[in-house]
Amino acid sequence: MEEGLDAGRLACWRAYVESSQLLLNRLDDELRGASGLSLADYHVLVLLSEAPRQRLRMGELAGRLVFSPSRLTYQISSMERRGLVARQSCPEDRRGSEAVLTAAGLLTLREAAPQHAASVRGYLMDDLDEAEVACLTRVFDRLAGRLRTDGATPAARTPGSVSVKEN
Amino acid sequence: MEEGLDAGRLACWRAYVESSQLLLNRLDDELRGASGLSLADYHVLVLLSEAPRQRLRMGELAGRLVFSPSRLTYQISSMERRGLVARQSCPEDRRGSEAVLTAAGLLTLREAAPQHAASVRGYLMDDLDEAEVACLTRVFDRLAGRLRTDGATPAARTPGSVSVKEN
Repeated sequence: MEEGLDAGRLACWRAYVESSQLLLNRLDDELRGASGLSLADYHVLVLLSEAPRQRLRMGELAGRLVFSPSRLTYQISSMERRGLVARQSCPEDRRGSEAVLTAAGLLTLREAAPQHAASVRGYLMDDLDEAEVACLTRVFDRLAGRLRTDGATPAARTPGSVSVKEN
Repeated sequence: MEEGLDAGRLACWRAYVESSQLLLNRLDDELRGASGLSLADYHVLVLLSEAPRQRLRMGELAGRLVFSPSRLTYQISSMERRGLVARQSCPEDRRGSEAVLTAAGLLTLREAAPQHAASVRGYLMDDLDEAEVACLTRVFDRLAGRLRTDGATPAARTPGSVSVKEN
């Protein structure tokens, strides 16, 4: 049903999309069960923990997470209610705001990390040889770049892909 | 925070997990907006449309989708309410049941397919060379195999990671 893909690319797409969907669901389930964190919570905590002074501007965080501004606002508000992050206005720009990792956020991340890392390695990363690591990094860095720079759908950009009713 | 991964593998994991999560969300949003289908609905419709007599046993469908039985039951019940599939008991085994594609399900899939296919090609597949297609197919076929055969988490399989009570 994916018109225009040859058999090889269709098999590739299906293997990728089906297994990735399940892997993300499984990692999310495991994290929630062990620590109450979603996979998205986890990524926010990792990025903040690695940033200078454990804080990032909201715009920078949205870019790093490939999140829309509204999705990031929802995500950070939820984490704020659980005490994992705080929001502060930027010292040098009163209109901007920053997400700041709290001590509780850091401790929650440190508790969750070993099991999550074991899952990531066990399901996927330990199985890859060096050439596969290089290939996946290349492919998904390009994908992230396209998703970051392009809010519109590819279909919306392709002339003629949307049927126009003629009266 | 993913202990035990070297810098190259950590960068690979992050590129993969972050961009895949966004791609799946974006495809799901686009499908819902255009046709009211989720990405999971879409995959069920594709599998049923390609099966002999447009029907599959629930167990076979769960295996193909890499879904747990309970998640599949929930998924199929939701699609049944929307008239996209029907459930029938198997002719040769009264205890088993089959999911059957309805005409409405087939028509919905045919309407949704062109735009979804354009998105899949535009975001990812048209960008890949032959070696990358081969690499991704190999890696994600292996991942699907591990996820299919293994309900337990990798952490649970690692000696020493599960505390065994000795009486």
